[in-house]
Amino acid sequence: MTARKEMNKKNKNLHVVIMAGGKGTRFWPLSRETFPKQFLKITGEKTMLESTVERLHGVVRPENMMIITTASQSDLVRWQTKETLTPDRIVVEPEGRNTAPAIALAAFKIRKKNKDAMMLVLPSDHHITGRAAFEAAVSEAASAAAAGSLVTFGVVPDRPETGYGYIKAGTRVKKNVFRVSSFVEKPDAGRARAFLKDGAYLWNSGIFLFKAQTILNEIKKYMPALYKAFSGIEKKLGTDLEPGALKGVYSGIKAESIDYGVLEKSKRVSVLRAGFGWSDVGSWSALGEIMEKDEAGNVVLGNSVNMGAEGSIVFSSGRLVASIGLKDMVVVDTSDATLICPRERVQEVKDLVDKLKESGKQEFLLPKREERPWGHFVVLEKGPGYQIKHICLKPKARLSLQMHNHRSEHWIVVSGIAKVQKGDEVFYINKNESTYIPNTVKHRLENPGMIPLKIIEIQSGEHLGEDDIIRLDDIYGRTEQQS
Amino acid sequence: MTARKEMNKKNKNLHVVIMAGGKGTRFWPLSRETFPKQFLKITGEKTMLESTVERLHGVVRPENMMIITTASQSDLVRWQTKETLTPDRIVVEPEGRNTAPAIALAAFKIRKKNKDAMMLVLPSDHHITGRAAFEAAVSEAASAAAAGSLVTFGVVPDRPETGYGYIKAGTRVKKNVFRVSSFVEKPDAGRARAFLKDGAYLWNSGIFLFKAQTILNEIKKYMPALYKAFSGIEKKLGTDLEPGALKGVYSGIKAESIDYGVLEKSKRVSVLRAGFGWSDVGSWSALGEIMEKDEAGNVVLGNSVNMGAEGSIVFSSGRLVASIGLKDMVVVDTSDATLICPRERVQEVKDLVDKLKESGKQEFLLPKREERPWGHFVVLEKGPGYQIKHICLKPKARLSLQMHNHRSEHWIVVSGIAKVQKGDEVFYINKNESTYIPNTVKHRLENPGMIPLKIIEIQSGEHLGEDDIIRLDDIYGRTEQQS
Repeated sequence: MTARKEMNKKNKNLHVVIMAGGKGTRFWPLSRETFPKQFLKITGEKTMLESTVERLHGVVRPENMMIITTASQSDLVRWQTKETLTPDRIVVEPEGRNTAPAIALAAFKIRKKNKDAMMLVLPSDHHITGRAAFEAAVSEAASAAAAGSLVTFGVVPDRPETGYGYIKAGTRVKKNVFRVSSFVEKPDAGRARAFLKDGAYLWNSGIFLFKAQTILNEIKKYMPALYKAFSGIEKKLGTDLEPGALKGVYSGIKAESIDYGVLEKSKRVSVLRAGFGWSDVGSWSALGEIMEKDEAGNVVLGNSVNMGAEGSIVFSSGRLVASIGLKDMVVVDTSDATLICPRERVQEVKDLVDKLKESGKQEFLLPKREERPWGHFVVLEKGPGYQIKHICLKPKARLSLQMHNHRSEHWIVVSGIAKVQKGDEVFYINKNESTYIPNTVKHRLENPGMIPLKIIEIQSGEHLGEDDIIRLDDIYGRTEQQS
Repeated sequence: MTARKEMNKKNKNLHVVIMAGGKGTRFWPLSRETFPKQFLKITGEKTMLESTVERLHGVVRPENMMIITTASQSDLVRWQTKETLTPDRIVVEPEGRNTAPAIALAAFKIRKKNKDAMMLVLPSDHHITGRAAFEAAVSEAASAAAAGSLVTFGVVPDRPETGYGYIKAGTRVKKNVFRVSSFVEKPDAGRARAFLKDGAYLWNSGIFLFKAQTILNEIKKYMPALYKAFSGIEKKLGTDLEPGALKGVYSGIKAESIDYGVLEKSKRVSVLRAGFGWSDVGSWSALGEIMEKDEAGNVVLGNSVNMGAEGSIVFSSGRLVASIGLKDMVVVDTSDATLICPRERVQEVKDLVDKLKESGKQEFLLPKREERPWGHFVVLEKGPGYQIKHICLKPKARLSLQMHNHRSEHWIVVSGIAKVQKGDEVFYINKNESTYIPNTVKHRLENPGMIPLKIIEIQSGEHLGEDDIIRLDDIYGRTEQQS
């Protein structure tokens, strides 16, 4: 812990920018347009966003952490970071415009508070193992960035991966820091094998570290229009005028990646040879690389019986998936749709999603919505022992007074105001506040307000069926079942 | 039609015995222990049992038709033959004991009414094409049977099938009738190819025609214990004492097939070389032989999008099945379970069902049951535009007065008594009676009795969701949704 304490001391200038704006077509049908990968628990107990935030708490001070997301995802980000971050740490872009505008906005905001700030920029939906190696890499990258470098994190490959871009390391600058010889697009299998043998080729992780001032200088040089757009509203950033100003800026700027816009052109780019384990979790097949496998090389999650399966990935959200003789296949089962695909073709899930649009099956691109007298709910995710619902109550609507034998519920208000009865207590919870209802405690949820009440409900317990609702009284008059 | 009229005239002695007692593990998860293949619409608009009955209406008089089934399936048989047969045509074995006892019972009952009766015996769950060829085959077999032969129907193979038993035809008796040279077990691929080339080998279809007197003589000779058991209760057959007498007999007899018990031993067996198309529909893979395929050789039924599939069978009961690159696979999706299996391994679905038992997943062997305040229901089958429910109302229970915009409902009472409100009319329906509720007509179902009311509900319409229930008043107080 001394090393970390020391780093915290040293790096009071170190900020983190987590980019959480990605769309989720590759993990369809579990991810949906409005519920992308970073919000899913596919790699463990926590969502990918939660794991990312947790990992970075070891690296920077909480007040130096920022999540940049888009309006359509900001509710979900607030919900998932409720326990770990204050809401002011979430920056909302009116719309996603790829990484360059997001990084420019973050840099302008951070530099305004601290001229000497350094920014560690990274995606919210990657899987990283080896915390000590990660922290060491950040520390070393920070030194190079302090000297004016744009440091990209290159991960040492352990297989001839064709799904990643590569960075070829050139001459050594210092210990694990090298000049960039070239950025290389995703290779074919033969080149990927050659890269692995060569040793100078590193996976381009999409993680960067630079001084806010350095990246802004480079954006000014290589993306002058973008720079000008944000510098025009710099004074409004961090004030009440920011949201309106951003709307104006975003309507006029084009989507561009920081890689293409700056890094592939700048003379200040270096690459850090990082020793931590990393995956971009770019497809269902990636679970085979990062999750524990059985003796036959299968990753099986959820309710499933597989006879003679080999090298396959089976994910069930609750229904039974039963298979015979699966070989190198991916099967994903959710409440309204099932995907079956050979592992080597998972990249085509995106095309499949396009095909669903063409076939008039758009409803399968959004989470499944269930209507109720008091409003509606959407099951965002369901797995062994837990279920996450997005619940919307109409103004003045009121659920029955009820209790559950087998499940506890955690409620987080993301919009509107809730009136809650919990046991004999009655109280209100506001946006960004939460409450917890243990099993066997009678409770009622009500929307006393004039606008829809939106809450995220996390149920946990051994049995999560709609049949475990004991109704004590109900304005809709229902005495059993259906929340 | 002259030919058929003539046959009807000629064959006033011809009876039909349809055996409808089979269990349904091979079509899991669509078929379940209590809902086997013969009750499913897998090959067309009608269930296999319905198609079988319809086909035979062209061959025998309705009063000469008999369905022999077991107690556990008799409700389903009554329901599915409601429009086509009178209930007295259904004979119920207390328990299934393979084909020999069923045929013996049928023969005793039929001979009691008509000493000269001939019996065409056939399974309820086979697929037959070519009605004229079928009727011609029956006609020719009847001539041979009249002369004292036990005629088995052998189908001319059109492929080297390894899933069927064969009958080798010996010397010709007359036109398409031959002595049986031998019965042959399912061959391996090499022998099956040789059989196809040879031409003397016919598929053993499990269809027979004989005089009741002939088969009883042969049963007496080769299965004397079985003969004795039934002859002991012959006087009670066709009287009120029959059910009790059968219980006694069936507790003491062992399960045996007519093939093994009689046909493979008798000297009177001949084989009819039949020209109709036939499949025993023994597995999901058989759909590939009998259903229409797309250009890539796929059979796709229900809600499904398949990119680049070849030679595959995809069946969805309602949820979306989306696939990429399926090759010679079977995918079957139902409300609570999904099966994925290579076509060449569909025979192992039986083993998979065994494995489910071992894994404590017995609930997936029965249809999915949903509890309600008034009782429960089970969705027996769901497909494009229709849904079949088995509904059970507790004594004195009453559903809400309701209507549906998009669906009509057909109700058949299989047990108990129903009080029905339909529009402004109120009436009762008894066991084996039915009523029809068009869409937009208000209706209510009630159990006025002291025993559970069981009905089969067939819904049809464009939209069959639980959300299309407009409640007008409800003793459970529910005002919207949930029937």
